[in-house]
Amino acid sequence: MMPSFGLPHKRAWASLFSQLLRPSGLVCIREVHFHSQVSEAVLTSQLKPHQEKSNFIIKTPKGTRDLSPQQMVIREKILDMVVGCFKRHGAKRLDTPAFELKEMLTEKYGEDSGLIYDLKDQGGELLSLRYDLTVPFARYLAMNKVKRMKRYHVGKVWRRESPTIVQGRYREFCQCDFDIAGQFDPMIPDAECLKIMCEILSGLQLGDFLIKVNDRRILDGMLAVCGVPESKFHAICSSIDKLDKVSWNDVRHEMVAKKGLAPEVADRIGDYVQCHGGVSLIEEMFQDSRLSQNKQALEGLGDVKLLFEYLTLFGIAEKISFDLSLARGLDYYTGVIYEAVLLQTPAQAEESLNVGSVAAGGRYDGLVGMFDPKGHKVPCVGLSIGVERIFAIVEQRIKTSGEKIRTTETQVFVATPQKNFLHERLKLISELWDAGIKAELLYKNNPKLLTQLHYCEHMGIPLVVIIGEQELKEGVIKLRSVASREEVAIKRENLVAEIQKRLSES
Amino acid sequence: MMPSFGLPHKRAWASLFSQLLRPSGLVCIREVHFHSQVSEAVLTSQLKPHQEKSNFIIKTPKGTRDLSPQQMVIREKILDMVVGCFKRHGAKRLDTPAFELKEMLTEKYGEDSGLIYDLKDQGGELLSLRYDLTVPFARYLAMNKVKRMKRYHVGKVWRRESPTIVQGRYREFCQCDFDIAGQFDPMIPDAECLKIMCEILSGLQLGDFLIKVNDRRILDGMLAVCGVPESKFHAICSSIDKLDKVSWNDVRHEMVAKKGLAPEVADRIGDYVQCHGGVSLIEEMFQDSRLSQNKQALEGLGDVKLLFEYLTLFGIAEKISFDLSLARGLDYYTGVIYEAVLLQTPAQAEESLNVGSVAAGGRYDGLVGMFDPKGHKVPCVGLSIGVERIFAIVEQRIKTSGEKIRTTETQVFVATPQKNFLHERLKLISELWDAGIKAELLYKNNPKLLTQLHYCEHMGIPLVVIIGEQELKEGVIKLRSVASREEVAIKRENLVAEIQKRLSES
Repeated sequence: MMPSFGLPHKRAWASLFSQLLRPSGLVCIREVHFHSQVSEAVLTSQLKPHQEKSNFIIKTPKGTRDLSPQQMVIREKILDMVVGCFKRHGAKRLDTPAFELKEMLTEKYGEDSGLIYDLKDQGGELLSLRYDLTVPFARYLAMNKVKRMKRYHVGKVWRRESPTIVQGRYREFCQCDFDIAGQFDPMIPDAECLKIMCEILSGLQLGDFLIKVNDRRILDGMLAVCGVPESKFHAICSSIDKLDKVSWNDVRHEMVAKKGLAPEVADRIGDYVQCHGGVSLIEEMFQDSRLSQNKQALEGLGDVKLLFEYLTLFGIAEKISFDLSLARGLDYYTGVIYEAVLLQTPAQAEESLNVGSVAAGGRYDGLVGMFDPKGHKVPCVGLSIGVERIFAIVEQRIKTSGEKIRTTETQVFVATPQKNFLHERLKLISELWDAGIKAELLYKNNPKLLTQLHYCEHMGIPLVVIIGEQELKEGVIKLRSVASREEVAIKRENLVAEIQKRLSES
Repeated sequence: MMPSFGLPHKRAWASLFSQLLRPSGLVCIREVHFHSQVSEAVLTSQLKPHQEKSNFIIKTPKGTRDLSPQQMVIREKILDMVVGCFKRHGAKRLDTPAFELKEMLTEKYGEDSGLIYDLKDQGGELLSLRYDLTVPFARYLAMNKVKRMKRYHVGKVWRRESPTIVQGRYREFCQCDFDIAGQFDPMIPDAECLKIMCEILSGLQLGDFLIKVNDRRILDGMLAVCGVPESKFHAICSSIDKLDKVSWNDVRHEMVAKKGLAPEVADRIGDYVQCHGGVSLIEEMFQDSRLSQNKQALEGLGDVKLLFEYLTLFGIAEKISFDLSLARGLDYYTGVIYEAVLLQTPAQAEESLNVGSVAAGGRYDGLVGMFDPKGHKVPCVGLSIGVERIFAIVEQRIKTSGEKIRTTETQVFVATPQKNFLHERLKLISELWDAGIKAELLYKNNPKLLTQLHYCEHMGIPLVVIIGEQELKEGVIKLRSVASREEVAIKRENLVAEIQKRLSES
């Protein structure tokens, strides 16, 4: 059974963004429509403009970008959904500094350590920008001697990668992590992590997906029984990791020709890593003549079997694939590992929007112990949602659909058809703000009525209140619906109540 | 008239946090209550613990800190309120990278430039962490040739200040900025910025406050007519800036003895900077024999007079004080400047919680032009809420009051009185999650019922669903209210509906 909080796939994001849509037929543009005729105030700035310097280019740093109001609206919707799921599972929110002492990050990321941003030594401590949210979490647990915690963290991380921006990879990006720390009975928190990944990916309606599961111990055991020398485990794992992009023949070639593996060893690996399936594959591996001889592998298989039992109770077993080729890179994983991939429909494949993994995680029982003065361990399991890739998919989808997104939430616009009504407009809008109503006006002494009404249409503001001489005399305000263009006169003292009534109905 | 969205001052935060309060009589602690007896899984980590290295201390970098779940709950409440106000005034959200090209930040901050964090040169561009949100906003406007925009930005900034953490000053801290860019009729956006500051400070119920207003042009004109040489404007301004902490005699001494000002010049300044008041003071200054001779000062006075006209229409004039001693430090201000201070009650003064300025801003018409290749100006006015100081005040208040804060939102706990009911608990909780209900269970195969009920009390979870042999046989679930300890049996198929009904009533 899939979660019932989702909507049907078709036009899903359209429904999701329906409250952001402007009335049909209107074009949403930047508010370039109301030109002001006032002369520029005489102002002295002692600051020198940059153009006096040679070759000055205004840009953001390589691999980074500003996020426009449109992008921020999409982001906030997605993050609200992700955080909502984390809260549904009882997580607390934590925040850590953007940078850590440099030594906190060393020896945690293997080959990737070269991608860490260091701060300049300006006297004092040596600092680095955080590379993920997992290592700061482990540092927090050890520092505060916390033995149990279910926490989520949404924040930016920084990696000096060669940015290939077309694929949605940036040097600054957002991560959404959920982790469970503590000594518990096996596989219960691990199963919950997979359940959370399913809830989020279903809830975001990104199309069909699959979560690959493996175990670090099965992987190590497999390499051992195939005859890979322990010194080559890392190199061979990184070859295996490429199987989702290149064929087995290419991977085999790399193992033998580049990494010096005996061809028969490579072939034995090949027999395993091309296997993926469900519970029956686990049973098969239990019976496997070689693998069943390895203690580590048996422990891993036992846990994965138990995990599938719980996944079945959670109703998500059909979304999970036990996949012996899954080999996540980070050094700190010790048990179950997993990675979610979107399954492309033929249409998406044509658009060649290859997004790969959208969520991943695993068990890391040794990381907290690295920070503890006495080496006390706190077992942890967690997941990270690849929100940047999800943002890219949804942005692309909205672009393709031609949907327009409102970047403000203004409910009421305060207008006048007459000159010299600024004071009345200011008094009126102040009343609306004080009543909690989202309201705007033009920052002009004497704007034209048409300019004001155009502004409302362009910005998707649903209601206009109009005050002029006639209204002032009669103690009323005209309330206009932008969509229907209907106008009614309302007693000034009833205006706020009437607006609130209209807004609650819409 | 003060905004009506506020509550009475007394016990204000208690009401605000009422939904976070646990039932009375319960103590909120970390979930240390459910000990697990399972033996630690045998896990191999190839990572070396840090304790093998000498003098390793686990800490966050100097001047930074982690934010605990308790702190995050308070923060989110406050930020929601601040952002809600920004949206009420029609602002769009923007985000910019944590770092900028180093040259973007140079020559913007005067003497404070030494406090900028630089990144290490790891090959490529020279980068610095952002120092505020204003300069990145100006860079964004120039880079994208945006001529008009009302935006807000909530984000961290970094400054290498000598941290005096007791006063709530950190090297990493959060800023909440609202700015209006564009050429408009005078003082309308400026008045809205002051209105926003009033709405936020009233809404947050921090006690009585006052917003000091001055104008850069009045300040410069005043110094000129007093006979201060232009080369000393900066130095004398920074002396004047100290008047909120030290007496005029001390400031005068500094001006004369340290900064070489003639005593009669200092005395002339003294006549001005000890003046503060409302509209009548503005009129007085218009009549002032010296000041009225200065063109710049007259322009500033004209604008401040118009500003007070609009502030009166907004109903906030009594919160604003025209104060000739206000001299904000940043180089980029060109017109109106303002700063909000909390007025201490005698009780607060005893606690010696000196928080000073909690919001500030002003007009900066030259900054965008510095980034534009042709020097095209985009006039801007904005404000920044000093949320870190506000967080500190509210945290202190909650600590003093002894209020407890829930750090999770869990609504239902899934329990069992019997052994071997893990599978039933997992099936049941999965149904709740899929129905959007926030639910937890203990990650144990066979927890004791008392342990489970204690957990609910300690975490403030209002409802428990209990499944055991009897319930399974009868096709029912027991639903228990933690506060009243009342239990009722509910048909399994009606459980979700009943829970949703109870939650909507509470």
